Amino acid sequence: MEKTGFRRNLINITPYVAGEQPKNDRIIKLNANENAYPPSPMVQKAINGFDVSSLRRYPDFSGEPLRSRLAEYYGLKTSQIFVGNGSDDVLAAAFRAFFNGSEPILYPDVTYSFYPVWCEILKIPFKTIPLREDFTINVDDYCVPNGGIIFPNPNAPTSIALSKGEIIRLLDANRDVIVVLDETYIDFGGESCVDLLGSYDNLVITRTFSKSRSLAGMRLGFAMGSEELISYMNAVKDSYNSYPVDAVAIAAGCAAVEDDEYFKGTLKKLIATRERLAGEFTELGFKVAASAANFLFVTHPRYKAKDIFTYLRDKGIFIRYFDSPRIDNYLRITVGTDEESDRLTEAVREFVR
Amino acid sequence: MEKTGFRRNLINITPYVAGEQPKNDRIIKLNANENAYPPSPMVQKAINGFDVSSLRRYPDFSGEPLRSRLAEYYGLKTSQIFVGNGSDDVLAAAFRAFFNGSEPILYPDVTYSFYPVWCEILKIPFKTIPLREDFTINVDDYCVPNGGIIFPNPNAPTSIALSKGEIIRLLDANRDVIVVLDETYIDFGGESCVDLLGSYDNLVITRTFSKSRSLAGMRLGFAMGSEELISYMNAVKDSYNSYPVDAVAIAAGCAAVEDDEYFKGTLKKLIATRERLAGEFTELGFKVAASAANFLFVTHPRYKAKDIFTYLRDKGIFIRYFDSPRIDNYLRITVGTDEESDRLTEAVREFVR
Repeated sequence: MEKTGFRRNLINITPYVAGEQPKNDRIIKLNANENAYPPSPMVQKAINGFDVSSLRRYPDFSGEPLRSRLAEYYGLKTSQIFVGNGSDDVLAAAFRAFFNGSEPILYPDVTYSFYPVWCEILKIPFKTIPLREDFTINVDDYCVPNGGIIFPNPNAPTSIALSKGEIIRLLDANRDVIVVLDETYIDFGGESCVDLLGSYDNLVITRTFSKSRSLAGMRLGFAMGSEELISYMNAVKDSYNSYPVDAVAIAAGCAAVEDDEYFKGTLKKLIATRERLAGEFTELGFKVAASAANFLFVTHPRYKAKDIFTYLRDKGIFIRYFDSPRIDNYLRITVGTDEESDRLTEAVREFVR
Repeated sequence: MEKTGFRRNLINITPYVAGEQPKNDRIIKLNANENAYPPSPMVQKAINGFDVSSLRRYPDFSGEPLRSRLAEYYGLKTSQIFVGNGSDDVLAAAFRAFFNGSEPILYPDVTYSFYPVWCEILKIPFKTIPLREDFTINVDDYCVPNGGIIFPNPNAPTSIALSKGEIIRLLDANRDVIVVLDETYIDFGGESCVDLLGSYDNLVITRTFSKSRSLAGMRLGFAMGSEELISYMNAVKDSYNSYPVDAVAIAAGCAAVEDDEYFKGTLKKLIATRERLAGEFTELGFKVAASAANFLFVTHPRYKAKDIFTYLRDKGIFIRYFDSPRIDNYLRITVGTDEESDRLTEAVREFVR
């Protein structure tokens, strides 16, 4: 239907339909890859003790206190860190800053759903590269002329990590484009490539506080790269929204980075639960991808994924089902606490029985 | 210089040079139109009492609690409110959602510096309309074919408001395009056009918590309009960054809206200080624009604005000087506390003497 009057100037967009956000407290929510554990007590102290009167001022222009804390933690310079309002904000800035060529950028066919959206919005040519049958990335497919590369490691929703050796092979074959490595889930397994930043000035790594640092509600993401590439991300930010990271988020982020003991303890617990859960799902007849993330990607040879999804939802257990090509018989299940995992396994056992 | 290798895919952008951010506490900072007073004690309670453990979860997808609080306050429906990460985020979403025609959008030649930036980024054709010699908006100039209109009321950095009658005349002549009214400073004077939303389904009003509600550090802005137009802004948001407003900001925003007594008391104090300051500057020989904002826009017939700016900066008083056409002999001075204003006037008196 053609739009008339003022409506002819509206953007041509289909409103996104949000997933279910169950509000009932008794529900087990394993559908958003949120952390099973709360943020560090030091984060609580930072927020609950925050000097609220200072909020009449704009926050630091570039999130400097958090940037320098992260730089110290990762052995980089402050000028090598970019912080944004969640990793979506960070990734969108990277797409804008780094993918401006005429050749298509490359990313996997099964991956984070926002990559194609940003390509569409920013009119970036792209080509999706099919994962292998077993959902692993074949680096050979990325050793072709292109305008840039982005992929998550570990990938989502597959949970599978690519080895550092394979990433080095990809980087060596792509010195003349910018490679963005989306390490959203890297803290839960996989080998981080942060130590490759010194050798590859065309590499940018993005991270988030939403998963491993239990701060999804605070909206904090960051990127690491050469001073030069990070300066372009800051230029993009400055031309769009000068202060995307608020002062409370900066304080919370600093506290989260400082409490490394809590951070590592939480990761250890989650990884142990993941391994136990993966074992139980395997026993129940599921095929479970080798997860390096805080979620499992599973399929069952005898049952439809959608039926399992619906059964669990009716029991108050929310997991994620994607009605998408190649993965429409798979389920993505966030690793919760041990207790949540037990209730999940129990419900799945009932279904399978 | 032509870029080679991976650098050829970098965005063509000139990094923005940030203004001075004095960190010394003894400095008087009157250069960012921040509120002279802290946020409401209820905001302090909301943040310092915030349930930090809940931050492991993503925040509400659309900032619903804050949207419904604002809807109630302004007598609108929740679906008529859009919230974003500061009004820059809100305005950028409006540019993206509403200015997609082939005819140029119109805005004043002297106005908020981000409008041309977004037009450039989003490739929106635009035409700037000169303000009159006295820096007022001439509505007749906007009664021509166009692709949309945006202007702040009161305008910045001029501080001058357009009357509601004139805005109605502009709206009546522009029923077939979307008009965005940027009411960043409206709480300090001027007549809000919120009550016109029922009559003009092509009108969108943007607001911020950064000025009148003392929450610049929290990054909160919002827009009000018809359900239809707001749904487009949400669609733009959802396609870019699903959760721009964090959970602490939502709670802080709700508390700020709830404490209406504090809000109105702060405004009253600021307006009284502004009027006193305007009188004193007039006595000192300045020409002072009739301000409906929390800042003054002044010029002196005998002294160069830049010299006054430099003199005050050396005294530790930071105001704003724009090296831009038409306004390069003007100063923008934020209205501070009474004490800050006294010290400012004293320093200016010394200079003029």
